[in-house]
Amino acid sequence: MTETIAWIAVDWGTSNLRAWGIDAGGAVVASAVSDQGMGKLAREQFPAALKAVVNELAPPDDTLDVVICGMAGARQGWLEAPYLEAPTDLSELGRGAVHPVVEGTRLNVSILPGVCQREGGENVMRGEETQLLGLAAISPGYSGLVCMPGTHSKWADLEGTRITRFSTAMTGEMFELLKTHSVLRHSLNGPLEGPEREHGFQTGARAGLDHPDMLLGQLFRARASALLSGRPPDWCAGYLSGLLIGTEIAANRNQIGTDPVPLIGSATLCGLYAGVLGMAGATGRVVDSTEVVLAGLKAARASIA
Amino acid sequence: MTETIAWIAVDWGTSNLRAWGIDAGGAVVASAVSDQGMGKLAREQFPAALKAVVNELAPPDDTLDVVICGMAGARQGWLEAPYLEAPTDLSELGRGAVHPVVEGTRLNVSILPGVCQREGGENVMRGEETQLLGLAAISPGYSGLVCMPGTHSKWADLEGTRITRFSTAMTGEMFELLKTHSVLRHSLNGPLEGPEREHGFQTGARAGLDHPDMLLGQLFRARASALLSGRPPDWCAGYLSGLLIGTEIAANRNQIGTDPVPLIGSATLCGLYAGVLGMAGATGRVVDSTEVVLAGLKAARASIA
Repeated sequence: MTETIAWIAVDWGTSNLRAWGIDAGGAVVASAVSDQGMGKLAREQFPAALKAVVNELAPPDDTLDVVICGMAGARQGWLEAPYLEAPTDLSELGRGAVHPVVEGTRLNVSILPGVCQREGGENVMRGEETQLLGLAAISPGYSGLVCMPGTHSKWADLEGTRITRFSTAMTGEMFELLKTHSVLRHSLNGPLEGPEREHGFQTGARAGLDHPDMLLGQLFRARASALLSGRPPDWCAGYLSGLLIGTEIAANRNQIGTDPVPLIGSATLCGLYAGVLGMAGATGRVVDSTEVVLAGLKAARASIA
Repeated sequence: MTETIAWIAVDWGTSNLRAWGIDAGGAVVASAVSDQGMGKLAREQFPAALKAVVNELAPPDDTLDVVICGMAGARQGWLEAPYLEAPTDLSELGRGAVHPVVEGTRLNVSILPGVCQREGGENVMRGEETQLLGLAAISPGYSGLVCMPGTHSKWADLEGTRITRFSTAMTGEMFELLKTHSVLRHSLNGPLEGPEREHGFQTGARAGLDHPDMLLGQLFRARASALLSGRPPDWCAGYLSGLLIGTEIAANRNQIGTDPVPLIGSATLCGLYAGVLGMAGATGRVVDSTEVVLAGLKAARASIA
């Protein structure tokens, strides 16, 4: 199969990297995953990490384009790909790519830029811009808010291929921090999945949606409920998750129109967000994140100089 | 001097304990501090930790009352002193005390209860109730909100010696978590005090006061500002501190009346809170936290059964 590969698409994140071999017709014919994320690599280790993954997909001497999105282009990554500045048209994403050399190979590597925002709240993204371009490709003409749940959730205003503004909510990271390091860990010390999780989630989501300005106070309820009402760890974990997601969605509620909000992220997380959007009288539409990243890398490749 | 000690007042927190020898006239004649906080001690280690501190203040064979507030009365402390339930009159605080025995001494030990709230948001406090009773003693007749900034800030509605409701904001703990463990740590990696700190603090406080519902999004600006505008660690630390305090104060803004809000806590922190209260069009009044805890322990002692 490998001889049919025309180019290689790579999503290089902080914790791992995913690569796909794409044939001339645009179909995925092979894929590989590695734990060599940007966060684990010194600058000089990137070429070898890429070669190891490419070798799983194609013969070592092939001449191939490799198009990379994500943290490999960060300042602390392989080679910095300076941000495009929002508002910007993502159909030109490839023009901002940088091209590190991988010695001893015939790989033509392009690392796509991220997008930054200077006015109206400084912000940065790397990787999500490619997914947004992919969404524009598979949902042509979509105009409105896009939600990308995760460690650092992004909310972007998209008008076709144009991104006008975006924000970042530290929701996923906050959940992990509070679960692992805060006083709330005492209330989450046990099985976090269980019959009480859903009720805790609903309670937290309602509280977050109704009073997003009171997050700092409502967090502590995970502790007080365990002490006073004997709430088990699964309830407390659900409450914390629901509270954070509800608070995040409430902060963006006024920007949500009547169209369903595209949700790009892990299927589990997108399901939770869709539920809370429903509680807020809105609708979510779960989009396959691999499909959009591949569509985005393909579209970006067309504009690489 | 030690022979003049009539009783011993103890504030036993999670990280340390403070003890004062009080004479018959109510004056402090000696004091001691120990790092043997509740968090470091197994149940059976509390008596020895108390004896070590008392021995710094008084001869070992004295018959003495010892009145303790704080985490020594928690479930995971020395001996649980069950919560009083708000609304409650703190002038009866001593009636809820428990009395562990310290073998081989003539100490009459009382551990004061904390206060819990079941309706209108489950919540708990241990130690602050004694400070509130002390505030009522030194500011008789005060009625209104009291702010107690700290790791877990408390906001309580006080009517004389009566506490009607309270909340807990995880502000101080959140600052430490974000500074130490989150992605923001990269932007706070350097001297956190410096010429830019004040501007960062003002910027963050304004953002928190104006948009308390957007905390999860505004936190990330500490990172984006460092990446895009080269904000140094002192600016980012000030921004994070101001943002969290501003968000906390905004959540309580509607409950603040025209009287100055008593602020009980570390002098540095109370100064920051007073500044942000001023930005919100309110006023803070810094109260000496040692004075109120001593006044509270003294007042509580009078009601011990």
